[in-house]
Amino acid sequence: VPVSMFFLKRRMPDPAQRDLLMRQEASRQTGGRVVLTAAEQKLDAYLHRLKEQEMSATPFPPALHFFKAKPLIEKSPVFKLLQKMPKGAALHIHSSSLVSVEWLVKNITYRPNCYICFTWDNSVRFQFSARQPFPRWDCFYWQLLETLRAKIGDPTGFDNSLMQHLTLFTEDPDGQYPSQDVVWGKFEKAFIASAGLVTHAPVLKDYFYKGLEELHRDNILYLELRSGLSRTYELDGTIHDKFWTLKTFQEVTKKFIGDHPDFLGARIIISVHRALSISEVKAAVKEAIQLQKDFPDVVAGFDMVGREDSGKSLWFFREALSLPAELGVRLPYFFHAGETDDEGTDTDQNILDALLFNTTRIGHGYALAHHPLAKELSRKRNVAVELCPISNQVLKLVSDLRNHPATVLMSEGHPMVISADDPSLFGTTGLSYDFYQAFVGIGGLKANLGTLKELAANSITYSSLPAHLKDSGRAMWQKKWDAFISANL
Amino acid sequence: VPVSMFFLKRRMPDPAQRDLLMRQEASRQTGGRVVLTAAEQKLDAYLHRLKEQEMSATPFPPALHFFKAKPLIEKSPVFKLLQKMPKGAALHIHSSSLVSVEWLVKNITYRPNCYICFTWDNSVRFQFSARQPFPRWDCFYWQLLETLRAKIGDPTGFDNSLMQHLTLFTEDPDGQYPSQDVVWGKFEKAFIASAGLVTHAPVLKDYFYKGLEELHRDNILYLELRSGLSRTYELDGTIHDKFWTLKTFQEVTKKFIGDHPDFLGARIIISVHRALSISEVKAAVKEAIQLQKDFPDVVAGFDMVGREDSGKSLWFFREALSLPAELGVRLPYFFHAGETDDEGTDTDQNILDALLFNTTRIGHGYALAHHPLAKELSRKRNVAVELCPISNQVLKLVSDLRNHPATVLMSEGHPMVISADDPSLFGTTGLSYDFYQAFVGIGGLKANLGTLKELAANSITYSSLPAHLKDSGRAMWQKKWDAFISANL
Ligand SMILES: [Zn+2]
Ligand SMILES: [Zn+2]
Repeated sequence: VPVSMFFLKRRMPDPAQRDLLMRQEASRQTGGRVVLTAAEQKLDAYLHRLKEQEMSATPFPPALHFFKAKPLIEKSPVFKLLQKMPKGAALHIHSSSLVSVEWLVKNITYRPNCYICFTWDNSVRFQFSARQPFPRWDCFYWQLLETLRAKIGDPTGFDNSLMQHLTLFTEDPDGQYPSQDVVWGKFEKAFIASAGLVTHAPVLKDYFYKGLEELHRDNILYLELRSGLSRTYELDGTIHDKFWTLKTFQEVTKKFIGDHPDFLGARIIISVHRALSISEVKAAVKEAIQLQKDFPDVVAGFDMVGREDSGKSLWFFREALSLPAELGVRLPYFFHAGETDDEGTDTDQNILDALLFNTTRIGHGYALAHHPLAKELSRKRNVAVELCPISNQVLKLVSDLRNHPATVLMSEGHPMVISADDPSLFGTTGLSYDFYQAFVGIGGLKANLGTLKELAANSITYSSLPAHLKDSGRAMWQKKWDAFISANL
Repeated sequence: VPVSMFFLKRRMPDPAQRDLLMRQEASRQTGGRVVLTAAEQKLDAYLHRLKEQEMSATPFPPALHFFKAKPLIEKSPVFKLLQKMPKGAALHIHSSSLVSVEWLVKNITYRPNCYICFTWDNSVRFQFSARQPFPRWDCFYWQLLETLRAKIGDPTGFDNSLMQHLTLFTEDPDGQYPSQDVVWGKFEKAFIASAGLVTHAPVLKDYFYKGLEELHRDNILYLELRSGLSRTYELDGTIHDKFWTLKTFQEVTKKFIGDHPDFLGARIIISVHRALSISEVKAAVKEAIQLQKDFPDVVAGFDMVGREDSGKSLWFFREALSLPAELGVRLPYFFHAGETDDEGTDTDQNILDALLFNTTRIGHGYALAHHPLAKELSRKRNVAVELCPISNQVLKLVSDLRNHPATVLMSEGHPMVISADDPSLFGTTGLSYDFYQAFVGIGGLKANLGTLKELAANSITYSSLPAHLKDSGRAMWQKKWDAFISANL
């Protein structure tokens, strides 16, 4: 590019050259090289007009806390279009928050034999049981939910209070969550509260099905679900192991595809908490290797989860994470890495280590933008970042999403997919909310239909699927995409 | 770098190679290639320990609004070291907020013939006058300040209330400034309120002197001051023009250097408000060309000021800004550009246009990190960004400074200097507060003494000084730096 040329000239910068530079820069952004069809160009122009209106609105939703922005977003014509758009795959969602709490409370807690207990720290526990459950260290007094609900007499109010326990959503996020510590505390509490419901074996089946349904309704055709594969229990006290959970997941997915032939499938990324010891993680890695052998079509790989800032680093677990290579087997990694504001700390090094351990994607990669060498590696090796903007905001890494570091990554067209992390905790379903934030807040006015198309296509490209299934996925998605374009002209 | 090599190996990433990568990445950051002397290394190790303590503290000052963080910062040992450190030059400060409001109120408003008037919108105006000033459109009733102060009887309380009018500083920034609009409104109000004081000719002399003194006390040796060169007035009603102001600035600077031989000097960047019309800006450019001829040692160049988001773009003024090139004269530009959160808007294009108009430095460049092409141009052409972190936070571009986009620029060693923008409005003096935020908040744990040394040295390198004065400046600074290192071992 003969850029230096026209700085020497003694006159106004040439408007044509200026346009060229602006176009060159725009071509680097995510989707900047996508060639749009005539029909797509028409929709793009319409979308641009909608976006201009959206961006001059006060308040600007991506600048607000999502819990306050949500009702505004739901009124947005851009959002409504994004809901209809085929978004491809959801590659970063945790099983514990796959399904909306509304369904958990209105459906699951109304089932027979559901017991509830209130803990000393103002949380709840649930348990399905044929008889009164035994007291536990954290729960002294179990009540049959049906009886309690009848006694209280205000089922709507009561159910709302139950939902409060299962989600971070609140009308006063700034007051309730003054710090990362507080919001992560509530995060873990909600996780534990829902465990008694979703680890009940019959519930889990319905839960998986319902989860796929919510994604499918949001025009998503494939899922990679991070799951710890908790043991599940039957009414009679029988306990099922991880094998059972994977088997169930496989069967539910098969049934769902039978009912919805335009859905491609779902896989599991086995996730282990970073609070474990090295030897426990070693055991988990070995187990994951075995489960992948048993379920090659279901198990995509392995990840470590839990708050990075307060947990141990990937490098701390290096012995465990080197096991597959030592054993000569391949266990793909999908590491959460760089979900932090702190620079130069051990946590901040997780991104480089994730790459050194040959990660397939990077969960969040919030810190990647200020790691120039890791960024180059990630780009060169086509390791996509899983961007979950609402999660980052709710967990207080950033307040105004226009300051999200992914603005840099998007402007450079860094490999990227959009995901939802913990939809039910944040009060979302599917990916449309996160697409909205990424497209309007992070991408700004310059992100366009090409950006959306590339982000959707990326979700198939960067999935763990084998080549032939990626091809089927791409074909299925393209068909939906073309229909979406025609329907919205 | 044979990076790809060890991804293929079937074992744990080699710790030595990992260290190498980490060092390679660290070498890219601002100051990453500075070679420290043995003494400097010792101080660096001490500084690193201090910083580790600082970064584990709760609350972490750069994460808070500066108005709340200020008392914490003042207790910080890192900050105290930064105050003693020779910081080089202050290249981005506006004349209207050069001197602390404490001095304005406690010294200037106590001078004889000072009148005050309260406006309908709860602001104040000042005027020095031999007799009762005439009512103005915005000010109906002028009172002699001396009389009013005596009448009120609580001089401390009264003086504090006056200070409130002259600064943005408040204990409740979130409540008082809910939006960018509100904080910019107060910004302009404070600017107008102080104008009557500092445009009084005898005050201006003392004001300039005091301003240099405050910088000198913060271990700064050179200043480039952005100024609109407002007309000044004498008690008898005489009005002085811009020529007088430049002459006065030159004389005061000379006197200050006489009194402080370790101070290098000060220059002016003539600044024009972007609210003007194209023809007015044309006239201002022509005038700046003339003033630069008249004061080649004082006038460094030209800039456009005022809020970018609500003002006209540089490209709008292209005819005016092309005048020097057309006339075959050189008028260096020091454009504010990219002081915005909005992406893809006209304002967001100011950065590219500043570069196309051959700007010498970029004021703020907040948006630069997500303009990959402009970023490359700026780097290639050695156009430094003037980073003013406290200003960006107070004016609500970012809340937690760890999310400032300069994290990206610093990690890449982008040409950069640190400055204070409007110290008196933000309740700072000198550059130490902004250095603290850049070093601790934006640089994170990985920024070190090399970073500080490079930032200080940059301020001389990227100044508008001719080569021989840069050499003197560097020598003066190096002497101070060496003394600083020895004194703090
Ligand atoms: Zn996650
Ligand atoms: Zn400024």
